[in-house]
Amino acid sequence: MNTHRHQFPALTNKAYFNYGGQGPMPQAALAAIVAAYEQIQTMGPFGLKTSALVTHESNLTRQAIATELGVTARSIALTENVTAGCNIALWGLNWQPGDRLLLSDCEHPGVIASINEICRRFGVIVDLFPLQATLNTGDPVAIIATHLQPRTRLVVLSHVLWNTGQVLPLAEIAAAIHQYPAAQPIRILVDAAQSVGLLPLNLAELGIDFYAFTGHKWWCGPEGVGGLYIHPDALASLDPTFIGWRSLDYSQPDLPLVDDARRYEVATSAYPLYAGLRAAIATHQAWGNAIDRAAKIVELATYLWEQLQQVSGLKCLNNSAPRSGLVSFQIEAGDRAKLVQSLESQHFYLRTIVDPECIRACTHYFTTTTEIDELVQCLGKMIN
Amino acid sequence: MNTHRHQFPALTNKAYFNYGGQGPMPQAALAAIVAAYEQIQTMGPFGLKTSALVTHESNLTRQAIATELGVTARSIALTENVTAGCNIALWGLNWQPGDRLLLSDCEHPGVIASINEICRRFGVIVDLFPLQATLNTGDPVAIIATHLQPRTRLVVLSHVLWNTGQVLPLAEIAAAIHQYPAAQPIRILVDAAQSVGLLPLNLAELGIDFYAFTGHKWWCGPEGVGGLYIHPDALASLDPTFIGWRSLDYSQPDLPLVDDARRYEVATSAYPLYAGLRAAIATHQAWGNAIDRAAKIVELATYLWEQLQQVSGLKCLNNSAPRSGLVSFQIEAGDRAKLVQSLESQHFYLRTIVDPECIRACTHYFTTTTEIDELVQCLGKMIN
Repeated sequence: MNTHRHQFPALTNKAYFNYGGQGPMPQAALAAIVAAYEQIQTMGPFGLKTSALVTHESNLTRQAIATELGVTARSIALTENVTAGCNIALWGLNWQPGDRLLLSDCEHPGVIASINEICRRFGVIVDLFPLQATLNTGDPVAIIATHLQPRTRLVVLSHVLWNTGQVLPLAEIAAAIHQYPAAQPIRILVDAAQSVGLLPLNLAELGIDFYAFTGHKWWCGPEGVGGLYIHPDALASLDPTFIGWRSLDYSQPDLPLVDDARRYEVATSAYPLYAGLRAAIATHQAWGNAIDRAAKIVELATYLWEQLQQVSGLKCLNNSAPRSGLVSFQIEAGDRAKLVQSLESQHFYLRTIVDPECIRACTHYFTTTTEIDELVQCLGKMIN
Repeated sequence: MNTHRHQFPALTNKAYFNYGGQGPMPQAALAAIVAAYEQIQTMGPFGLKTSALVTHESNLTRQAIATELGVTARSIALTENVTAGCNIALWGLNWQPGDRLLLSDCEHPGVIASINEICRRFGVIVDLFPLQATLNTGDPVAIIATHLQPRTRLVVLSHVLWNTGQVLPLAEIAAAIHQYPAAQPIRILVDAAQSVGLLPLNLAELGIDFYAFTGHKWWCGPEGVGGLYIHPDALASLDPTFIGWRSLDYSQPDLPLVDDARRYEVATSAYPLYAGLRAAIATHQAWGNAIDRAAKIVELATYLWEQLQQVSGLKCLNNSAPRSGLVSFQIEAGDRAKLVQSLESQHFYLRTIVDPECIRACTHYFTTTTEIDELVQCLGKMIN
């Protein structure tokens, strides 16, 4: 494991627990980015050969992502980040006044702000359902089902909750939603910021319409590259909003929209980063497959959760062992922002969460038990 | 000049005339990008210090751009590319059925596709005005003025036309538009893909509402970083569409929109590229100021245009000397796509344009007359 860890320069000078914020980029990813810049400059930067190269690199990247997600490359649009993917899904439905959007109470403020603007512009009504409270008791599937309404058009939730680390049973949720006799098909948008690169995925089996993710968190790719999966059956119902030359089929004289998920891509991006993301994914694959990586992540999160139980003055949100790599806890006294700041100055990297008020620590498959022991020891001293 | 050129690795193995497509990145820009990646990994990648660093880097980048454009940093939103900036402006107006959008006949297909989608969704009507025909005769200001209508809400045009290289008199155009007694203020969106980094700019004087640009063309920055200038008086009339955490003011508990152009930024971007763009701008400033650079660009374009006049079987679109760095020409016989392909195989980089059918060659301030002589000689042989 130590040899594997040495590939991540960020890990050499700290105990890192912010994988849910951003993953440390492996050296191979930076090397691939630099090589891609140099290749583009040598070939072009703009010309026929470079254009073919960029198309090829984009295809390879959609394919690498699609393989990890268990879907076809034609269902993947490359985006700048998770939020861009959510926005594509949110703005692309043919909203009518009185339509309803069912939203979990654990979504990211950026996504909520976009939904609020859609409500303002199109007269859409938001129904909020209490997902946060189901961390330890209650059934998310049943709660979602009871909140559906005849005019519900879209359900928005996360696969792994960024605040509590709860893992949602997406297949069961999708089945419950699809059973509901709504006026129109109810679409499902999943914020996958915390699931892609953490959970083994087979999206084709889940029945999800839109799944928005990023490469820079659990995949440890460069910031600024993410994607959106669009279920082939949902493509026709989702109009592209922000459009550019990448959305268009240049092989036809009237430039129609591309006949797959690329229609949601817009224009020139930082192409050299695509090679960086693929190198990051390959680094993980060299360690183990997605199932083994997820098992190790959960094993280490469980170890962290168990150790934290021993610290007095500290309470984990989760009453049972975690099923993801996110472990959130509360402190009984003191200022959690100051605590996180102080931890960072001692080279322990965690973050605060506002709702519920807590501190979040993440483990990756390459986290060490030594790191965890040292963090727990430090926390014990600082709190008490 | 040779020492200066040596800073651009792309120029060592070719005669490059595709600055309007993408500028060659100086070595200092790649070095700055690599240094920024390393700094982020050393500091974080995610934590309190990294967050402060990224905020600082973003501020420096908006300021560097603002200084070049003659505006305040608060009026600059960082975007991924020109098209994203155009989309922000296009989708942010409160469109009503029957509203009209006045569009030049020289705009980029990606922007046109977005406008078509807006028309479809909101019942907006597009009026096209014949700008292309004014390259050699006619007055763009008068033509725009005659095409305004009481319901015109937005005029969309480019500052420097990407197909013919024509430079539009924006201040006069803006004045004419503002004089028109419309029902509501008529907003002006400018596609600045070919003007930023080419022309000396003082946007504050022009009376333009929205000015969308990129760093990767005439500024020679990395692909994937651009921006949108929003006139302070137009901010309140432009709602953000794609929204994310960067749009929000986290210093206030209810997370309102940021009170300046950052409200149009969305979420995580490739921050290390910001340092690359600033390094590219600094490389140009080290050679000379914006006025001197533009003068040199036009001088070299004029030299190219004069030389091309001597080639039989070839006709420049422009009857008079160019006023930008774009020189477009037609060939009397033969396939222009094949010609461009053959030129690239001989290390001369140009591109084809579909409307009007032509070939485009661009000169930057560091283009050499030797490159131009060799291109013209090669063209003379290949055409005849």
